[in-house]
Amino acid sequence: MTVTKNMKNLKKIFLITLLQAMVIPAFAQKASWIWYPGDFDIYMSNVMQNRRTERGSFFPVFWKMDSHYVLVDFHKEFTLSQPEEVKLFVEGTYNVKIDGQAITGFPKSIQIQAGKHKLSLKVYSQATVPAIFVQGKTVVSDESWLTTFEDKEWIDASGKTSDKSGTTFVSAGSWGLTDPYSLPSAFKLPVVKHTTVKTEKAGTGYVADFGKETFGFIKVHGLKGKGKLSLYYGESKEEALSTDKCETLDHLKIDLTKKTDSVMPLSKAFRYVNFQPENGVSADSISMLYEYAPVSERGSFKSSDAELNKIYDVAKYTFHLNTREFFIDGIKRDRWVWSGDAYQSYLMNYYSFFDAPTVKRTLLAQRGKDPVTAHINTIMDYSFYWFLGIYDYYKFTGDKKFVQDIYPRMQSLMTYIDGRKNKNGLLEWMPGDWIFIDWADKLSKDGEVSFEQLLYARSLETMALCAKLTNDSENAAKYEEQAKTLKAKIFDIYWNQSKHALVHSRVAGQPTQNVTRYANMFGIFFDYFTPEQKLAVKEHVLLNDSINKITTPYMRFYELEALCAMGEQSYVLKEMKNYWGGMLKLGATSFWEEYNPDKKGTEHLAMYGRPFGKSLCHAWGASPIYLLGKYYLGVSPDSPGYETYTIEPNLGGLAWMEGKVPTANGDISVYMNKKEIKITSAVGTGKLRIKSKSKPVAKAAEIKSIGKGFYEITVEKGKDYTVSYN
Amino acid sequence: MTVTKNMKNLKKIFLITLLQAMVIPAFAQKASWIWYPGDFDIYMSNVMQNRRTERGSFFPVFWKMDSHYVLVDFHKEFTLSQPEEVKLFVEGTYNVKIDGQAITGFPKSIQIQAGKHKLSLKVYSQATVPAIFVQGKTVVSDESWLTTFEDKEWIDASGKTSDKSGTTFVSAGSWGLTDPYSLPSAFKLPVVKHTTVKTEKAGTGYVADFGKETFGFIKVHGLKGKGKLSLYYGESKEEALSTDKCETLDHLKIDLTKKTDSVMPLSKAFRYVNFQPENGVSADSISMLYEYAPVSERGSFKSSDAELNKIYDVAKYTFHLNTREFFIDGIKRDRWVWSGDAYQSYLMNYYSFFDAPTVKRTLLAQRGKDPVTAHINTIMDYSFYWFLGIYDYYKFTGDKKFVQDIYPRMQSLMTYIDGRKNKNGLLEWMPGDWIFIDWADKLSKDGEVSFEQLLYARSLETMALCAKLTNDSENAAKYEEQAKTLKAKIFDIYWNQSKHALVHSRVAGQPTQNVTRYANMFGIFFDYFTPEQKLAVKEHVLLNDSINKITTPYMRFYELEALCAMGEQSYVLKEMKNYWGGMLKLGATSFWEEYNPDKKGTEHLAMYGRPFGKSLCHAWGASPIYLLGKYYLGVSPDSPGYETYTIEPNLGGLAWMEGKVPTANGDISVYMNKKEIKITSAVGTGKLRIKSKSKPVAKAAEIKSIGKGFYEITVEKGKDYTVSYN
Repeated sequence: MTVTKNMKNLKKIFLITLLQAMVIPAFAQKASWIWYPGDFDIYMSNVMQNRRTERGSFFPVFWKMDSHYVLVDFHKEFTLSQPEEVKLFVEGTYNVKIDGQAITGFPKSIQIQAGKHKLSLKVYSQATVPAIFVQGKTVVSDESWLTTFEDKEWIDASGKTSDKSGTTFVSAGSWGLTDPYSLPSAFKLPVVKHTTVKTEKAGTGYVADFGKETFGFIKVHGLKGKGKLSLYYGESKEEALSTDKCETLDHLKIDLTKKTDSVMPLSKAFRYVNFQPENGVSADSISMLYEYAPVSERGSFKSSDAELNKIYDVAKYTFHLNTREFFIDGIKRDRWVWSGDAYQSYLMNYYSFFDAPTVKRTLLAQRGKDPVTAHINTIMDYSFYWFLGIYDYYKFTGDKKFVQDIYPRMQSLMTYIDGRKNKNGLLEWMPGDWIFIDWADKLSKDGEVSFEQLLYARSLETMALCAKLTNDSENAAKYEEQAKTLKAKIFDIYWNQSKHALVHSRVAGQPTQNVTRYANMFGIFFDYFTPEQKLAVKEHVLLNDSINKITTPYMRFYELEALCAMGEQSYVLKEMKNYWGGMLKLGATSFWEEYNPDKKGTEHLAMYGRPFGKSLCHAWGASPIYLLGKYYLGVSPDSPGYETYTIEPNLGGLAWMEGKVPTANGDISVYMNKKEIKITSAVGTGKLRIKSKSKPVAKAAEIKSIGKGFYEITVEKGKDYTVSYN
Repeated sequence: MTVTKNMKNLKKIFLITLLQAMVIPAFAQKASWIWYPGDFDIYMSNVMQNRRTERGSFFPVFWKMDSHYVLVDFHKEFTLSQPEEVKLFVEGTYNVKIDGQAITGFPKSIQIQAGKHKLSLKVYSQATVPAIFVQGKTVVSDESWLTTFEDKEWIDASGKTSDKSGTTFVSAGSWGLTDPYSLPSAFKLPVVKHTTVKTEKAGTGYVADFGKETFGFIKVHGLKGKGKLSLYYGESKEEALSTDKCETLDHLKIDLTKKTDSVMPLSKAFRYVNFQPENGVSADSISMLYEYAPVSERGSFKSSDAELNKIYDVAKYTFHLNTREFFIDGIKRDRWVWSGDAYQSYLMNYYSFFDAPTVKRTLLAQRGKDPVTAHINTIMDYSFYWFLGIYDYYKFTGDKKFVQDIYPRMQSLMTYIDGRKNKNGLLEWMPGDWIFIDWADKLSKDGEVSFEQLLYARSLETMALCAKLTNDSENAAKYEEQAKTLKAKIFDIYWNQSKHALVHSRVAGQPTQNVTRYANMFGIFFDYFTPEQKLAVKEHVLLNDSINKITTPYMRFYELEALCAMGEQSYVLKEMKNYWGGMLKLGATSFWEEYNPDKKGTEHLAMYGRPFGKSLCHAWGASPIYLLGKYYLGVSPDSPGYETYTIEPNLGGLAWMEGKVPTANGDISVYMNKKEIKITSAVGTGKLRIKSKSKPVAKAAEIKSIGKGFYEITVEKGKDYTVSYN
């Protein structure tokens, strides 16, 4: 029952703030490679997604891949108090102008006189993204530079430049790449050497076990001889041994007279590698270069339940493996940026790495360029998750600039979607649409599916919010009205009072009698239901075994979220232990694309009609990270960027738990046992909400009863709080 | 008075037709490199337009450059009576599927069994255009293959491919490149060696004269030593000698211990090259690799007037120099694809090379990809010329397929334009627009300029025509109505009865009193005027010296065309001799961007405020090709592809003339002196129209009087006609 006000900490924070304020000019002078915003994201996602192979065949995506702008103009206006030498690094063919005057050739360094100037570079590059790196003492390339793909700078017959240009300049994009000697196109994730845990003879070679699911490049040491060498990769030992059915492999022709170390050209996902040299080919050993995203593991969770802790750790490892240049679905396949999958990754990320750049990249890569010719990934639901991803990004980071930057691309996608409404103002299948929802048997996609309309409504609300942030009040009002109308329509059409649920669809003008979990669980955490409807849905849908079960971690994510949002943490804890614990019991070292406890043995490996088709390391398998952070530690933002937030910890039956939730400006730490809660926060103003039989006790903190046995304490940043409750 | 019916010729033609029919399968089995239609055109136009430099600085365009689709799917369905080996050549990373089944790796040759099959290749390439070359005995890549940039081939959880795809397939694009070992991206125009005509000492080196305006790569023979070498290019000797003001140059650092032949990296336009080695650098000699488009010089013109013949020859040479991968504006600068310039090139082309592929490429390159973010080349008038270019292309070639292929891109450009109408339904300047019209002093671009509305109306008529060709009758009716309304509005607003002309513009709701030639001359050959208006415009505008004169060959093209269309061939002949003859008298070896007879000496070389800014070899300078073919030889199509056509020869004061006008299916030859006309045609059905005091005489041909002293003879293909008249 003490709240410790740590003045030392507070001073430290003030000091840091002061130092940061002082070093801002120094920061601003840190140069980065810059480009037209979104272009490198599109380029690099093409590179990454085109690394997929299936049994040695190149396996690209089936949707439109966009391209960067091949000709881009960059400029910056500034005033120098002293002359300055400025070094120029460029990827592409370029010219340089100072105050509109071109400099001959391809200068690598220029001298700029004191005074007011405009420095412009124009870069052409088809193969890679036009990019510049400008390094002077004060003049440096960063996101404050302006850029355009059409500068519209025509001249008249006298040589005078047009004074009536309609050029739109936008601020440059950057990934914060600060090495001028490493071109953006050479961007690669870091690697580190890992060795095999054990090997076992097989055929003319052996199967190497790396101990757990992993990702990277196999390195063959001391390779020699002439002939064929084959590597068969397996997420399971069975897969690696199945030379004719494993999903990924390398066939190599070797002709080496002396021992050479050789690294495979493409990174792969595996735990096991079946190494099969032909007669005449030999090698000393194999190892791997583990390739990883250098993110910080900021979020944490530990509890009195060892199995739950293991689930958390494996989930985090699963998620880290799938966090690459972008958030991908699975490391074996598809290795693509799927919007529905990424949307969950964003949420997991906010409770683990809090890596905002990877969220932004992934959103930009998914959206690509105009014109919109299909839904994102061709999937109707996936277009909507994209909007929702922006909504959440803003909520968690408070980064208004990104919303403003991406708003025009939000508008054109929404215009595409609005253009596909049927005569009832609802969405149903049209040629080119994939209505996915979930991998589930006999899931009807016919007619007007309630789930899609629900996502549509939420996306319109997101548009309204982002329109406001962009000062587009006219469209904000339009989107708001549209969302309101659609929400009313959803309840009119789909709410079935006798079933206490939204029905699945309306076909040929008739609402079906079919109740599925999808729209109902989203309705809960979208807060679209009345409190009574929520309770009814919980009972009649979520906790009703006669409603078709969900078998993918993908939709379990939302199902368990909905239950947590209804305060069912104890139930969900058991479910987590059953479901994710079930995979662990089967030897999983990462979480799967799909898990059906009813299956047996190698049945768990099969999917899509292929014996090893299933991905055993799928981002959407990692949702415990999110659930434990948001609904057990109980931390979530109430206003953008955690300016205000709620901490409503819930042990869900655990004896104790502790952990950290990261934010853009520091962590929020929570410890809870059955008697005590300890909080430290580096950010904003929180509301700690506790259920207690009697009024909790805390030193130097006001405790407010808010009814129904709940109490609230205001949490200020930089202070430590210890609260006793019962 | 004889018409010779040459039965031998006729038989020959029948025989050729028969042979062609027999060899069609052989033709169909000729493989070409194929790609997504329009993509290579965009890619190569980027390559070409980015070769421009100005005094050693890279000088790219200021409008948006588009990119090819980076991921493209190609497929073809066929039935084999026998098994067949098929060789595969691909530019890009690819996979191959037979009947939907992927083949491992990157096969270079596959065996296909007898029976019905589908062969698919999917290619990813960022740097170059995804392209394939498939060569079997019967299975070959050609424009009959189907292609898409989004195949939307998703699968369900069982691995079954979606049966409800919304994929749009379009037939492949090709440039007829038939060498599988030469990748499309390596495409280059051919070169041939040319030598200097004379050299003259200058500075530490010399000025080499190649005898006339030319284009290509300078080759330095026996280059040796260490130090700097500079080459200054000049279309005039003055320019080559002006090392600080010449427009193009090469600065090279040489470090060669033995004599080496060295070719400059970029092709240049020049007649003179000022070769300036530093101390320590020497060379034996220079020559050039003349780079040219391998088109056939099919059209011809010769007459009793030697100066006119010279004008025709220099015009044709000028035009050939500017006919490159695409029709460009000028070979020194801009070396870009400008729509207004290209539009004239198309017309010249129909009377010289009749090279349809270069027209198609140029139209595709100009238009680029959606979304439309600006007018073509940012110029309002240039968007309209693009539509007119398609209209003419169809008229001259009858190639309906191309119109159908490009129609969607026509629609999106027209939608962009329609979206920029003001409240009066007219176009006026908006941010981002360049209203060009012509290089002319004090030409007002304010308010609603009549010239732009006239082009807009004609473009809408083109849309209506093309909509019909694409069986889009709904939009055809819409565009027709829109054109009709706009035309009526134009005459309501701009026709000034007391000035007998369309006025230049309406500003702030008030038609101005300003009469310029532009709208008035277009109104004539667009046939928008009544016969009375035409005569009035001829007298009060075209032949009225108080109306501002035109000084660019660009607009002289239309001015003289309008006069020819009014039967003023004699006047125009004198104008041609004055204007183009004037350039020849000043020593021109190609025709210029602008010519003002009032200027003196080196004033002729200056433009845009730069002493050598003017292009001395500009495509729009070559219009006599067009005028002489269309209005003197008098040949023009009446229905698409010369199925029917008119020959209305007009000596315009010449004693005699003869020449050929090419068509897609052979030439039309015309000879005329003051007494006799001889015609041979390989195509369609023509109407020979002759003015004669008494009824002309011709053997075996019916002569019909059509009034006002005119007579008409039907010309059938394959026959020779000789007509006497007086």
